Amino acid sequence: AYLKSIIQTIEYFIVENEKSARKNLSMFIGQDFSESRHYAVLDEHTSLESIPELLKPLQTGTTAGILSEAGLPCVADPGSALIALAHKENITVVPHPGPSSLFMALSASGLNGQRFMFDGYIPIEHEQRNKRLKYLEQLSLKERMSIGFIETPYRNQKLFDVIKAILRPETQLCIASGLMTPDEFIATKPIKVWKQTNYSFSKTPAVFILQA
Amino acid sequence: AYLKSIIQTIEYFIVENEKSARKNLSMFIGQDFSESRHYAVLDEHTSLESIPELLKPLQTGTTAGILSEAGLPCVADPGSALIALAHKENITVVPHPGPSSLFMALSASGLNGQRFMFDGYIPIEHEQRNKRLKYLEQLSLKERMSIGFIETPYRNQKLFDVIKAILRPETQLCIASGLMTPDEFIATKPIKVWKQTNYSFSKTPAVFILQA
Repeated sequence: AYLKSIIQTIEYFIVENEKSARKNLSMFIGQDFSESRHYAVLDEHTSLESIPELLKPLQTGTTAGILSEAGLPCVADPGSALIALAHKENITVVPHPGPSSLFMALSASGLNGQRFMFDGYIPIEHEQRNKRLKYLEQLSLKERMSIGFIETPYRNQKLFDVIKAILRPETQLCIASGLMTPDEFIATKPIKVWKQTNYSFSKTPAVFILQA
Repeated sequence: AYLKSIIQTIEYFIVENEKSARKNLSMFIGQDFSESRHYAVLDEHTSLESIPELLKPLQTGTTAGILSEAGLPCVADPGSALIALAHKENITVVPHPGPSSLFMALSASGLNGQRFMFDGYIPIEHEQRNKRLKYLEQLSLKERMSIGFIETPYRNQKLFDVIKAILRPETQLCIASGLMTPDEFIATKPIKVWKQTNYSFSKTPAVFILQA
């Protein structure tokens, strides 16, 4: 109810996908509301040069909201460049609480939640990926922190195989897949135990978290 | 309503503070519910040795829930050691969404949300603190990531003064204080601009995020 009253004050929505944003706002608030608002798209293809244009309505006092398709805007999701410019222009920024699979995974991992890092997407290219994984393992050891990263769902199995092949047997790995779905699976085990565990990824999104 | 139905299935609560947990459960579900449940305390004073005892009821099939006073359990909050043991014992762990001031701050900072680190509490001792801050600034530069940390509220002003004195003028700093309160304040500026800005901390909790 609180979030609903906040959303009703918003005139202009900056969204990843206009169609699904309109649909969700219709369902959450109502079709009249959804149809009477303005929309602009900000996604991973938005160029830095077009950010000032998106911000323009806010400079004349319009209240805008950023909506993500899934996850928290600006955290492993588009939006940061726009917010950075808003701060520069002294426009008030207000975050609203929402679930994020990264932090749900971290809280359920049993790994270090006092000091952690999220590394975004792991490189695709074979050598770079191996180098990055080994570097993250060393960094985790040095800083005594957990380190999370993600991969495109159809590459998860491959990444998991590489992780098992190159990380140290005693390094802990959490796999959190299908969070908040009926197929939710979360387990933390040392690499040596994962090697003996018959786990295959489905095509659901997953978060990997390691701690050396 | 969804969260309410989940909570009603929980027989045993592992909490930071029994009194306020009972009070909150009474308000959220009802006094009868709150009084009929079992409670155990897990806070920053809980020793690692006492963790197995806390887990015992779960080994006979009892459903338990971890409740934090504020924030997400196990993320900059107690609980990880218990969850780690639960994974070891193959007990199913299910995270539930909840707001976390760290991630609300990150999403509202305009700083890098694709690659970030949270460093927990910054050291108190003068030399160690300066060394750590400079090290984090270098790490942020090297990894192109934002780095967040917190401090006890009454030391925030001092930490802010030190940050202004020792970090590079062009390093970006986000201060997010009093999140979700009427005094919420969130701003991101380069150190050189903060030096010219007349900002004083009140005693409200704050999150600092830097990006070199």
